[in-house]
Amino acid sequence: MIIILKQNPAPKQLESLKDWIKKMGLDIHISEGTHSTILGLVGDTSVVDIDLIGAMEIVESVKRIQEPYKAANRKFHPDDTIVTVGNAKVGGGNFLMIAGPCSVESRAQIMEVAEKVKEAGAGALRGGAFKPRTSPYAFQGMEAEGIKLLLEAKKHTGLPIVTEIMDLSQWEHFSEVDVIQVGARNMQNFLMLKELGKTKKPILLKRGFSNTIQELLMSAEYILSGGNPNVILCERGIRTIETATRNTLDLSAIPVIKECSHLPVIVDPSHATGHAKYVKTMSLAAVAAGADGLMIEVHNNPHTALCDGQQSITPEAFARLAQGVKIIHEGLEQERVL
Amino acid sequence: MIIILKQNPAPKQLESLKDWIKKMGLDIHISEGTHSTILGLVGDTSVVDIDLIGAMEIVESVKRIQEPYKAANRKFHPDDTIVTVGNAKVGGGNFLMIAGPCSVESRAQIMEVAEKVKEAGAGALRGGAFKPRTSPYAFQGMEAEGIKLLLEAKKHTGLPIVTEIMDLSQWEHFSEVDVIQVGARNMQNFLMLKELGKTKKPILLKRGFSNTIQELLMSAEYILSGGNPNVILCERGIRTIETATRNTLDLSAIPVIKECSHLPVIVDPSHATGHAKYVKTMSLAAVAAGADGLMIEVHNNPHTALCDGQQSITPEAFARLAQGVKIIHEGLEQERVL
Amino acid sequence: MIIILKQNPAPKQLESLKDWIKKMGLDIHISEGTHSTILGLVGDTSVVDIDLIGAMEIVESVKRIQEPYKAANRKFHPDDTIVTVGNAKVGGGNFLMIAGPCSVESRAQIMEVAEKVKEAGAGALRGGAFKPRTSPYAFQGMEAEGIKLLLEAKKHTGLPIVTEIMDLSQWEHFSEVDVIQVGARNMQNFLMLKELGKTKKPILLKRGFSNTIQELLMSAEYILSGGNPNVILCERGIRTIETATRNTLDLSAIPVIKECSHLPVIVDPSHATGHAKYVKTMSLAAVAAGADGLMIEVHNNPHTALCDGQQSITPEAFARLAQGVKIIHEGLEQERVL
Amino acid sequence: MIIILKQNPAPKQLESLKDWIKKMGLDIHISEGTHSTILGLVGDTSVVDIDLIGAMEIVESVKRIQEPYKAANRKFHPDDTIVTVGNAKVGGGNFLMIAGPCSVESRAQIMEVAEKVKEAGAGALRGGAFKPRTSPYAFQGMEAEGIKLLLEAKKHTGLPIVTEIMDLSQWEHFSEVDVIQVGARNMQNFLMLKELGKTKKPILLKRGFSNTIQELLMSAEYILSGGNPNVILCERGIRTIETATRNTLDLSAIPVIKECSHLPVIVDPSHATGHAKYVKTMSLAAVAAGADGLMIEVHNNPHTALCDGQQSITPEAFARLAQGVKIIHEGLEQERVL
Repeated sequence: MIIILKQNPAPKQLESLKDWIKKMGLDIHISEGTHSTILGLVGDTSVVDIDLIGAMEIVESVKRIQEPYKAANRKFHPDDTIVTVGNAKVGGGNFLMIAGPCSVESRAQIMEVAEKVKEAGAGALRGGAFKPRTSPYAFQGMEAEGIKLLLEAKKHTGLPIVTEIMDLSQWEHFSEVDVIQVGARNMQNFLMLKELGKTKKPILLKRGFSNTIQELLMSAEYILSGGNPNVILCERGIRTIETATRNTLDLSAIPVIKECSHLPVIVDPSHATGHAKYVKTMSLAAVAAGADGLMIEVHNNPHTALCDGQQSITPEAFARLAQGVKIIHEGLEQERVL
Repeated sequence: MIIILKQNPAPKQLESLKDWIKKMGLDIHISEGTHSTILGLVGDTSVVDIDLIGAMEIVESVKRIQEPYKAANRKFHPDDTIVTVGNAKVGGGNFLMIAGPCSVESRAQIMEVAEKVKEAGAGALRGGAFKPRTSPYAFQGMEAEGIKLLLEAKKHTGLPIVTEIMDLSQWEHFSEVDVIQVGARNMQNFLMLKELGKTKKPILLKRGFSNTIQELLMSAEYILSGGNPNVILCERGIRTIETATRNTLDLSAIPVIKECSHLPVIVDPSHATGHAKYVKTMSLAAVAAGADGLMIEVHNNPHTALCDGQQSITPEAFARLAQGVKIIHEGLEQERVL
Repeated sequence: MIIILKQNPAPKQLESLKDWIKKMGLDIHISEGTHSTILGLVGDTSVVDIDLIGAMEIVESVKRIQEPYKAANRKFHPDDTIVTVGNAKVGGGNFLMIAGPCSVESRAQIMEVAEKVKEAGAGALRGGAFKPRTSPYAFQGMEAEGIKLLLEAKKHTGLPIVTEIMDLSQWEHFSEVDVIQVGARNMQNFLMLKELGKTKKPILLKRGFSNTIQELLMSAEYILSGGNPNVILCERGIRTIETATRNTLDLSAIPVIKECSHLPVIVDPSHATGHAKYVKTMSLAAVAAGADGLMIEVHNNPHTALCDGQQSITPEAFARLAQGVKIIHEGLEQERVL
Repeated sequence: MIIILKQNPAPKQLESLKDWIKKMGLDIHISEGTHSTILGLVGDTSVVDIDLIGAMEIVESVKRIQEPYKAANRKFHPDDTIVTVGNAKVGGGNFLMIAGPCSVESRAQIMEVAEKVKEAGAGALRGGAFKPRTSPYAFQGMEAEGIKLLLEAKKHTGLPIVTEIMDLSQWEHFSEVDVIQVGARNMQNFLMLKELGKTKKPILLKRGFSNTIQELLMSAEYILSGGNPNVILCERGIRTIETATRNTLDLSAIPVIKECSHLPVIVDPSHATGHAKYVKTMSLAAVAAGADGLMIEVHNNPHTALCDGQQSITPEAFARLAQGVKIIHEGLEQERVL
């Protein structure tokens, strides 16, 4: 961490700043320039509150050199984290395909989709029970009943299930859920993240639609530092100036995360693009970019889906997508041994 | 609402779409073009789920003409909403100045700040008790104890208090709070918004840092449609490509909201700019842009503040700011009668 | 095109608007709603000036249904455009790899890089002669001399050359250049685009760092409508809230452009990511997303490059990248015939 | 400038880096941390090429402490720059109102507008002759003829004229123009900026719609360092996620620029908001934020304007706006002497 001081700092304040830093167990190196004096903080600065320092009267600005996250940091955990999801694994070379409808709508629907995506190669079933919707007048999900239907589908197919929690008050319904999804809008619901740090259930943490990769890793840090090592990150597009797609899928986030962190990262091309017609292409691109998995919206009849039908593909299209994914995967394997 | 159909839509599907629209009590006007057929939906389309239509096989795209919000819409409620906050009012020509520290840190601190901001002209006291922080290692607020101290300061000064709820599980602590703040990160926490619609307490709804004005009004719609008419909107900056300020204060949002909605809108220049040195200037600009109030971070000793000290101003600076605000206000009055 | 009128439009103005529309050869369909009247314009609206209509007193808003570009539009030109670059082709199934240094720095440098990238499979050589730099104090390129060295390298290796024009006043130096690059900052230099429409030389048009895909296609329209059909589009990242990469590579732009337009589209992962370490991964992802080519910065000694060395890879790294590209390509072929 | 080295840098490379830095006349302070070594560069680093350093093998990252601009920097030029425009001045307490149509359309139009805006208090006349338009099919301006008409209006009213240059090839037409405007899309046309540095004519430099304040100041640096001190900056909105206004007017840019630079800064609320109805409000806000001037689009008949009519106001509305501006100004004066 680098602290740039204002010109001619009051000596008393400078001393008190230095004492405070040393009490945190850090060393200080000082560079005196013509226009500014710079303090270099040496040691583990991840727990230093950068805002506190920035507010000090003698401080011009503060810059971090080291990342502010530790448990999520590859520097301190060089090996890939592998998260177990039912019989499947994700991360460290294990690829996981999660598929299912945006919303659970009926027993018939979820059973049919579950069977078909399993057959096509999915390793987990997704489905929304509690649905956050922008309009109070839109369909809000089947709620607890939806989770029951997902559990039935799990029993029937053996597929572990992934579904989103919107509020801690829903916790009781999630005891048998295999993977708890934290949606983009809850990525910085820090109270929820803290609670999820107390369980050992895998958490699928989606990137907020206007959050940086570092913020995503800080949110993962909340869960990890609470004691839950089972975090799966999910890139699902960020809000940009482009409007042809619902969001802009940031595939570069994959190599960036792989470099900074040991956590597995999957991609959701359905929400990112918002259009069924782009889902397969962007799935193949995500695999080529090194994703550890995909989460795909699949609906037996997209044109009558009660939510996000525009971005859902049919089970048949999913089967073709899965074949494409396999081929690109084999290509990557071949490329690695060159 | 305008529905653009694909070329040569299947007649059967077209009929079924038309029937479905008519069942919602809407009329349909059809324009047949060379490349596309257009359906114009006539009537109250605010409850129509645009995603459902967009997913249909014969539909190319859908565009809204009318706004998707109704309770928040000035078209249906031409008069300004006036929200009562303790002895003060906001909206409809009533200006409210809310001031206080980012976090409540001690009895001495909150008492001193409360007295001084009251003297300088503040109509309400703000202070954080439950603090959402990006890092799990940063100070997280005094929690329930902080609210108790705020209530003491209220008793002492008579100022109504404004403080943020982070999660519904904290609800019990808010029974005596005058204004419940929903933070930027919770703007789309729809479950919380629904619950807040069941009370009559004024809700201060902050715009998410990457949310559009329309999304802000849709979130207000959740509260209003639940039965609570006391919503105060707050512009606090959006995330853009500019990094010199923490966020980019979008003052144009004020005239835009004034045109679309009857709700009062206040401005938080402290969080928007992130720097104490810009707070007064942007406060004056906000007043000139037509804001119904301001929310300002004031700390008796910004350089030792436990959070966001960089953006806090002293009680003395706040007193000067309040005088400037008064002068600009008088100017606006003078201008109106020209 | 859809024109939404204000409530109770003045009949005289409405008549004059209708006359004006009909004079452009368009038909009008009218839908009268409770809150607004809608005119549907039927016919070729690509030449209608949407701003002119929007400014009219009786008009609430205007929305385009059809795209505002015609020559670049796949609807009117269903077959892929194939652009010939020296002995190579790009588009319609032809993949082109362009490689070379950010800046031409010396004869030795450009000769060595040219030979090595050719050997590794590049079909064209890139190199900057006129360099736009943010700081007036930074290296500005070898200018005319740089182009001479590129032409020497072309003579020596047979590779066609790609280099950027910054201003029309440099035109004389480009007579023997094979592909003229229009940089991101000049994407909306409409006067330059018009002039480039008068030649038949292939134009490599880079997307502006904050321009939409539709704006990119409108800029292509300037060149195409001027009479030059040889336009190659280039996605090179957009400016977003993410800072871990220099820009955010928008790979979804590839399937979007493929759907809307017949023009070939290549990807520049070097400028997009700004880091050599991400270039290969994002190249493979671009290929999987359907790119018609890649433009890669290659420098014989990236650590001493006079510009953008951080994002340049070595000729050896480029050779490995090219092998990976080939493997992904074969995978896509295999996938297509499934 | 701070250079963070990779762990265990090769000693030879480290020595050569240090030598290179010292040759530029800079001193080096070294801090050795547990995970990284940091070099602090002391002296005038504005001419150091940050990219060059960042590309070095032993360098992890580089961060600037000092601004990369010098001629535009208030640190080195504490007094406000005052630019003379005809009989008027802008900066250092002098406020300049520039008004006129988006495009010159006819002698009658420009004469009428010029007379009326002068009467209402404008100090300069604006009008577009060469018009950059997104669509090749839209009106492109009267070109040289438009400048002639502006000069006639100048002769008639005495108002100095402001008009945009799109390309250096138009230079001959600008000899009698008082203020040369560089449009948002040309803000980083560095070749043009260099040429404009060779004249002494005032340059009105508009911020690019996706450029940071620092980039704006770097572009000003091109002109200033070329020898032309007469630069007026113009904030005209940036592209963000908000779509209710054409762009998001960044009024915080005014206090930020005032702090970093001595150059005058004016505001263009017409282009920023894109709607006539918001222009007056945002003009008042701009004045309250400390702007040194305004540039307002005024058209005698906005509903028939050949470009940007939606954002143009009538001469009568402009007269009222000018009165409001005066009142807010007087308020600010009053506030300053408190």
